Amino acid sequence: MTKVSLSRLQAKLGYSFTELALLRQALIHRSYAATHYERLEFLGDGVLNFVIAHCLYQRFSDIKEGELSRVRAHLVKQDALESIARRLKISDYLYLGEGELRSGGLERPSILADVVEAIFGAIFLDAGFDAVQKVIVSLYQPLFDDLDPNKAGKDPKTQLQERLQAIKIAVPKYDIIDTSGAAHEQVFTVSCVIEALAVRTEGAGSTRRLAEQNAAHTAMLLLDAQPAKKSAKQLK
Amino acid sequence: MTKVSLSRLQAKLGYSFTELALLRQALIHRSYAATHYERLEFLGDGVLNFVIAHCLYQRFSDIKEGELSRVRAHLVKQDALESIARRLKISDYLYLGEGELRSGGLERPSILADVVEAIFGAIFLDAGFDAVQKVIVSLYQPLFDDLDPNKAGKDPKTQLQERLQAIKIAVPKYDIIDTSGAAHEQVFTVSCVIEALAVRTEGAGSTRRLAEQNAAHTAMLLLDAQPAKKSAKQLK
Repeated sequence: MTKVSLSRLQAKLGYSFTELALLRQALIHRSYAATHYERLEFLGDGVLNFVIAHCLYQRFSDIKEGELSRVRAHLVKQDALESIARRLKISDYLYLGEGELRSGGLERPSILADVVEAIFGAIFLDAGFDAVQKVIVSLYQPLFDDLDPNKAGKDPKTQLQERLQAIKIAVPKYDIIDTSGAAHEQVFTVSCVIEALAVRTEGAGSTRRLAEQNAAHTAMLLLDAQPAKKSAKQLK
Repeated sequence: MTKVSLSRLQAKLGYSFTELALLRQALIHRSYAATHYERLEFLGDGVLNFVIAHCLYQRFSDIKEGELSRVRAHLVKQDALESIARRLKISDYLYLGEGELRSGGLERPSILADVVEAIFGAIFLDAGFDAVQKVIVSLYQPLFDDLDPNKAGKDPKTQLQERLQAIKIAVPKYDIIDTSGAAHEQVFTVSCVIEALAVRTEGAGSTRRLAEQNAAHTAMLLLDAQPAKKSAKQLK
């Protein structure tokens, strides 16, 4: 089991393993060998959640427990871990079975995210809490830099509604304007209308809720594009 | 803010605070003061989940990630934390507002459980990871002693089914035998029949699922009471 040398990965992590076998195990998918990364991932998920909780606790001394939970959920979700995995070029180091390789496992977001957690678990076992905390904080720096605790983890409908409330404008109105497709593959199309701003957008999705979220997301992009202007802009 | 001296509580925790204000904050409900335990609880929940994950990882080297998660959920749920709170006599030290006091807040399981987590958060801030890990491991010792990783966190229906599969007996049959009460206060009564063992029990609950779980639970108690005997025992 040689593959690409692990020294580059360790350099990117900013951490050198005493027991390199732990790092190797964190890179082995269950399709490749019986001893794989899943137990390390369980441990790493735990330490990641806690380290991020502590960072948020320190950073935002004035926000409440419920909001801290929302922001944490945003930071530990698959998207965030996948972005870290891609920076680390995890797919260069992964061990997958034949079937997984053929079906694109090297690029599968869930595998990439799981491996990042497993690496955190491996570092904890190799050197303890302070060492893994240092690695996590450093890898998460770009995500913290981009973080707006008032938005992170909020769905587009909630964000849009809060944004309109802040400028004392009535909530948007959502209506189904089309449904198509067979029973279990339906596509809903929904409109989102903000009357006071003469804004109208549309969104599609496999559920009514998803379609509404997409319409709300587009409405926000539109508002971003005309920040100072409260006057008429009509889509479609 | 004097109340009962905090030295007895610290003795029970096996930990002495450098900054006693942290322990005090962990004991203040939001109904009592603006600076209360909820942010510490957020932090404590995180460290608890991780410390328990690590204990389980070490203790059970042969069980899989999914099972580790189930057992952890069982150990960090409200029941478990409440049992620890009662051992620590948390209600002797709590600060609650008038309304909460009158409505029985001192004995409310959710408050007791939250305060235990908040205390873990406070210890972490006071002295770091190793200190809080030591306290958690020691408080959880009785729960670990009682722990059966094959059962912990499994609902009664699942436990009963696995138990019957192990002795190659067909799964139990559940039937609704009565529903009563108005629309939103219905009570379902369900029977659980294990034909091969001539066992029949009943269970009631506000949903069909709950009623089935109760019937399964009673069936297991019955099987425990007649462990060696596979012959007829008929309830009702």
